[in-house]
Amino acid sequence: MKIEDLNLEIEKLGRCNVPSPMTKGQFVSDEDRVLYYATLKEAETCIDAGRSLPSFEMAGPREKIYFDPSKLKCGIITCGGICPGLNDVIRAIVLSLHYHYHVNTVFGFRYGYEGISPRHQHTPVELNPKIVADIHEKGGTILGSSRGPQDVSEMVDTLDGRRSLKIGVVGIPKTIDNDISFLDQSFGFETAVSAARPCIYAAHVEAKGARNGVGLVKLMGRESGFISAYAALATSDVNFCLVPEIPFTLERFLPALKEQLERSDHSVIVVAEGAGQDLLNRDSACDASGNLRFGDIGLFLRDEIKAYFQREGVELQLKYIDPSYVIRSVPANPKDSVFCLLLGHNAVHAGMAGRTNMVVGYWDSEYTHVPIPIAVSERKRIDPDGRLWSSVIESTGQPRDLTGSSDKG
Amino acid sequence: MKIEDLNLEIEKLGRCNVPSPMTKGQFVSDEDRVLYYATLKEAETCIDAGRSLPSFEMAGPREKIYFDPSKLKCGIITCGGICPGLNDVIRAIVLSLHYHYHVNTVFGFRYGYEGISPRHQHTPVELNPKIVADIHEKGGTILGSSRGPQDVSEMVDTLDGRRSLKIGVVGIPKTIDNDISFLDQSFGFETAVSAARPCIYAAHVEAKGARNGVGLVKLMGRESGFISAYAALATSDVNFCLVPEIPFTLERFLPALKEQLERSDHSVIVVAEGAGQDLLNRDSACDASGNLRFGDIGLFLRDEIKAYFQREGVELQLKYIDPSYVIRSVPANPKDSVFCLLLGHNAVHAGMAGRTNMVVGYWDSEYTHVPIPIAVSERKRIDPDGRLWSSVIESTGQPRDLTGSSDKG
Amino acid sequence: MKIEDLNLEIEKLGRCNVPSPMTKGQFVSDEDRVLYYATLKEAETCIDAGRSLPSFEMAGPREKIYFDPSKLKCGIITCGGICPGLNDVIRAIVLSLHYHYHVNTVFGFRYGYEGISPRHQHTPVELNPKIVADIHEKGGTILGSSRGPQDVSEMVDTLDGRRSLKIGVVGIPKTIDNDISFLDQSFGFETAVSAARPCIYAAHVEAKGARNGVGLVKLMGRESGFISAYAALATSDVNFCLVPEIPFTLERFLPALKEQLERSDHSVIVVAEGAGQDLLNRDSACDASGNLRFGDIGLFLRDEIKAYFQREGVELQLKYIDPSYVIRSVPANPKDSVFCLLLGHNAVHAGMAGRTNMVVGYWDSEYTHVPIPIAVSERKRIDPDGRLWSSVIESTGQPRDLTGSSDKG
Amino acid sequence: MKIEDLNLEIEKLGRCNVPSPMTKGQFVSDEDRVLYYATLKEAETCIDAGRSLPSFEMAGPREKIYFDPSKLKCGIITCGGICPGLNDVIRAIVLSLHYHYHVNTVFGFRYGYEGISPRHQHTPVELNPKIVADIHEKGGTILGSSRGPQDVSEMVDTLDGRRSLKIGVVGIPKTIDNDISFLDQSFGFETAVSAARPCIYAAHVEAKGARNGVGLVKLMGRESGFISAYAALATSDVNFCLVPEIPFTLERFLPALKEQLERSDHSVIVVAEGAGQDLLNRDSACDASGNLRFGDIGLFLRDEIKAYFQREGVELQLKYIDPSYVIRSVPANPKDSVFCLLLGHNAVHAGMAGRTNMVVGYWDSEYTHVPIPIAVSERKRIDPDGRLWSSVIESTGQPRDLTGSSDKG
Repeated sequence: MKIEDLNLEIEKLGRCNVPSPMTKGQFVSDEDRVLYYATLKEAETCIDAGRSLPSFEMAGPREKIYFDPSKLKCGIITCGGICPGLNDVIRAIVLSLHYHYHVNTVFGFRYGYEGISPRHQHTPVELNPKIVADIHEKGGTILGSSRGPQDVSEMVDTLDGRRSLKIGVVGIPKTIDNDISFLDQSFGFETAVSAARPCIYAAHVEAKGARNGVGLVKLMGRESGFISAYAALATSDVNFCLVPEIPFTLERFLPALKEQLERSDHSVIVVAEGAGQDLLNRDSACDASGNLRFGDIGLFLRDEIKAYFQREGVELQLKYIDPSYVIRSVPANPKDSVFCLLLGHNAVHAGMAGRTNMVVGYWDSEYTHVPIPIAVSERKRIDPDGRLWSSVIESTGQPRDLTGSSDKG
Repeated sequence: MKIEDLNLEIEKLGRCNVPSPMTKGQFVSDEDRVLYYATLKEAETCIDAGRSLPSFEMAGPREKIYFDPSKLKCGIITCGGICPGLNDVIRAIVLSLHYHYHVNTVFGFRYGYEGISPRHQHTPVELNPKIVADIHEKGGTILGSSRGPQDVSEMVDTLDGRRSLKIGVVGIPKTIDNDISFLDQSFGFETAVSAARPCIYAAHVEAKGARNGVGLVKLMGRESGFISAYAALATSDVNFCLVPEIPFTLERFLPALKEQLERSDHSVIVVAEGAGQDLLNRDSACDASGNLRFGDIGLFLRDEIKAYFQREGVELQLKYIDPSYVIRSVPANPKDSVFCLLLGHNAVHAGMAGRTNMVVGYWDSEYTHVPIPIAVSERKRIDPDGRLWSSVIESTGQPRDLTGSSDKG
Repeated sequence: MKIEDLNLEIEKLGRCNVPSPMTKGQFVSDEDRVLYYATLKEAETCIDAGRSLPSFEMAGPREKIYFDPSKLKCGIITCGGICPGLNDVIRAIVLSLHYHYHVNTVFGFRYGYEGISPRHQHTPVELNPKIVADIHEKGGTILGSSRGPQDVSEMVDTLDGRRSLKIGVVGIPKTIDNDISFLDQSFGFETAVSAARPCIYAAHVEAKGARNGVGLVKLMGRESGFISAYAALATSDVNFCLVPEIPFTLERFLPALKEQLERSDHSVIVVAEGAGQDLLNRDSACDASGNLRFGDIGLFLRDEIKAYFQREGVELQLKYIDPSYVIRSVPANPKDSVFCLLLGHNAVHAGMAGRTNMVVGYWDSEYTHVPIPIAVSERKRIDPDGRLWSSVIESTGQPRDLTGSSDKG
Repeated sequence: MKIEDLNLEIEKLGRCNVPSPMTKGQFVSDEDRVLYYATLKEAETCIDAGRSLPSFEMAGPREKIYFDPSKLKCGIITCGGICPGLNDVIRAIVLSLHYHYHVNTVFGFRYGYEGISPRHQHTPVELNPKIVADIHEKGGTILGSSRGPQDVSEMVDTLDGRRSLKIGVVGIPKTIDNDISFLDQSFGFETAVSAARPCIYAAHVEAKGARNGVGLVKLMGRESGFISAYAALATSDVNFCLVPEIPFTLERFLPALKEQLERSDHSVIVVAEGAGQDLLNRDSACDASGNLRFGDIGLFLRDEIKAYFQREGVELQLKYIDPSYVIRSVPANPKDSVFCLLLGHNAVHAGMAGRTNMVVGYWDSEYTHVPIPIAVSERKRIDPDGRLWSSVIESTGQPRDLTGSSDKG
């Protein structure tokens, strides 16, 4: 993806000529756009090169809409692992369709992609303001979800095939890991960091409660370690934070842990589930039987730490905590509740205005439209040379470089 | 242990002839005793047989004490796994010794029994009101703990050998499982049940979020399933509660699970860590390699459920949650804070009055003195024919009998 | 009320000859009774005098019941101020009637006593398992409540007059203040104490954050100060706890506050709403206009403290917190959830067995039947000479005697 | 203030020629600047006019610093009302000075501005990593605070006068109301919105629990209603949200409330403390006695609502909740903890680099330097025509216009 592609127009189903039933005066115009660059240097380089500044289409209600509310049918689907705020989003969409646009037919497809697959025969559920009234007080998704192939065009084909209607597809990126580019933050992320804090406290209490106590916490984060990094910053008790973006070797990490343990008698380690995957691969290469147990960096580290300290003749008490399900199933915190509400409203506004093949984003405190191909073109990851990771290093006190063999540094 | 033994006197170090520095008028006399029986029938049987009613010595400050506060040295030790309220208890003892009795020398031994073992050379920490001021706001124990042999007489010998002083030993039973006989409740138990609730909610959210979703939660409870039973009652979402006291067979449990899943599309199972140990033994008998993995009923059930449904050709989504460390490391809830405060005060009162070889109990809303041999003579367990277990059966809807082979009922 | 009256039989509507649909073997017999006395001395005095030991009828399911479930109609009513656990109780009653006894007609009367008054014309709502499924997750009462005259016999007359049926009335005492005699504890009390803790923390934070900071918190407790006493014990930051049972004078309290403030720079005061009513009366005697503002001990103390320190020339920062509505509206904590569940079940069992004019109690860890005249005969109050109040005095450090004029002590 | 003024340089004490002890490679250069404009239109207008894009200096560690850490003395002061996160900020500053820059002398001034006033004689407290280790777990400020004149130049004069040293003053804006311009958000704001949610729930529970129940909650917000607006969005139960930026009249509001109450039987009203000040002034004009009671919009509304409904002959149950102290005294939530940590670090970086007369800001996900005169030049307020307020209107369902006399629409 080139940054200039941001300036491409969002795909539209057709011309908007239905007047919006929303109150006049609060509308966003198609000229309203949100700057991509946040720093002067980037903007000036662009200007100096004679290029137009890259920007996102701003989200919000339009004065003219594409669909006739009285004839429109809408469907909602939730896919992938559960994430705090899913029910808030469902609720916001239903309420906005109902009260802002007077759309009365809203369906919820059951169990993610299965719900629109001909193979399964799940009946969609009807959604209305009464049904969704209190759903945001519960975690998870009332529609259910499932993992598996989620090919947007196939989904559209399936629906289209049945009904031969023009269909707009508007997404709200659901990733608790906060790893979507062109989005300042994804919903549920903050709630997840909040819910991780008591688990790290628990690891700290356990670690302090035993001589040479070690608390090891595995958190979500397959490709990006944002949850682990923010949780480490939010909880000053973390001594090591291991994330997918920053490689480490056991030859360096284990002695560093030993040294830290000698200094302070206890240790707290936070590891993102996607960290150290190269180490697991190396081991699975050694062990041709394809032992599933080694697919899990948490269990792998637990065993490697125990084995190393046993070799070193040091008794230690390691407590391993894997709280992912407990974290991701909590209801949204108030900040995420508001965020989900406005993401849901803006998704409805975009859909009513005939936008399609896009997701609602959030950038520089503004809600935006992001084409799906751009949103998925690259994953957002922690910059090893950026301020966030430096702050984690400063806060944990861990060595900046945990790679190489043991004779190093 | 015979019930009549309750009436035996609590062991005393000697005659109490030091006047208590506490305020006059609030003292408990040695004639104050708490009835063991709560029901009329038991009491009348006893009276009709001409036996005296069994009773506990009542705890509380005595008018005359045994130790001279100005010469006394006290030590505190915390043993075994951590439990909510340990720091509350430590704090209550220090404050009571300091403010009620003006005892100025209080030590804390580090890491449980290790702290008074000559093999380890941990220096005891000094404890005073300033040091313990806020410790109750944190989980765990500031002294650290350890598992291992905890022979009271050896402990006394060790201390005695060094100092040739009269030593009184007063305990406060620490068991998050609430499995001490002659104690209505042990501290930390209620906090643990409270902390288990969000974990069961998480299991429920996960289970509802997937087609044929199953949430499996393992809770503490080696010999007694009180935490699991109360957590099940406190959270109406539990479909099966499995505890050590009530045996079950896979041949009956798995089909019952399947049937329940067919009715309601999702299932929540709570299992105490000590449940179904006979099943594990059977398996470990089959597998002579002593596979540690099978020591864990949670992982065992997870694998057996998955295997069974695969054999049955039913897709299911099982999420396994093992939240023990997160539960036991939380600070005491307000109820347990008060309970720990008063247990700690009463332990100090007992010790100052020269009682030894006893623990502080709680019975019929009164604090009591219980001889250690009686307290440990038998474990408190759920009565399979009692009202508590009936309430669990009624609340979960699970079959009362989950034993036998599959052809049964 | 004489203690012997406890042994009187609970009023019954008639002979029980309908077989209970509940599972055999878990039944309570009419001979099962719970001892009133908890201490040996009381029991022995009674035995020596040749009197039978006073006891309560034990609650629980009976083998034979009075009502035919297929013809029975039940109504639920919630009266007075809201209290944590009301929805848990409603839910438990509906579920027990439905699943234990197959009673299908259950009504909820709206807004307390108004709901069965001919003056108001509220339509009762139908209650069934689906409607009550999740109500326990919310505070308050789904039925609504109201204050006002709640004469049981008038209620029965009203219902009876309309329908000329035999009507049993079984209550569950609802008092957040925990002030019912013959009940170890009332539901919602523990949740209230828990919810009070953050408010006292807030008062402490505010007090510490200012020079001569004073945090003044008013808590519930009209006749009995149990919430204030337990909240003070649960939160070691309280310096003064004022309750209705222990009189105090401004002439003694204000100088004691000044002295404490001089020692520690900040102060936290917890006052039960019913404390110091004689002071308010004295003032209202002075001020014949019946100034409503002086009906409130919290506002009264706030103003008196400010005025006193101004007279004394001491600057102080007083923050007044009145969190009653925030406390009483929270959902029940897990302990109270279980308690409400079992209270509800036992109320249903009692009602089905034809008991009437009684409430369900809890005594010595057993659920009991208590005749309404006995339950309301006297209020449970803190004993100024008992261990609870001594513990409060010890924990706060406040002078035991805060009465008299200033020249004293 | 003109937007162009943003481009003015931040005031500096002198030339930076001391090498930073921080790790190389993570430094921010003085050319790093953060764009003020977030939308394309604004940027293009500026470019078209030939003006340079307004921008903020970016915060962060500099390669060369101004102060010699070995000779530097630092002081921290907390002023005004308490706010979640103050202790996090104090802690972050102390840790950064100590570990990043090896500055060993850090003082904390007591009770805000009083602490550096010659009139009061508070001794500053020494701050070091051990003292601040756990302070972020408590609300409030360990230094204490006070209100009163906070003239930066006078503060500098006082310190300067004593010591004739170059003094840099770097602030971190503390306003729970989130009302600072040129700051996307102020610390503690999100925590406050979170802490407001249970209070609004309480109001809702109370309102639903009574016939014609009204829950009225007063929240913080003197000049700006952000807390009320976000709390209303975070809690779908709010029916009216009244903020300082949007005027209303009783003639319109009270009938609108009555109408809404007729529709749904209960009502929840959130009012910011600064809302409707013109109504209070009008009344105080009427009532020349300067009745203090009318300085409080919450009490004023409570009384006006009661009086209106009495005149209308409608019984209603109004519960008034004023939770400000309970909200502002909670510890920071995890998001605010991280935010405070990084604000604190960046304040230290700015100070070490010789910046003065500035505050640390946060803009477009970047930390910035903002000159104090600009930061205080105008208050950030809710735009009555913007999306935020529209969302509030849509979420509450309240009429957009609540002004005018009653005969209007």
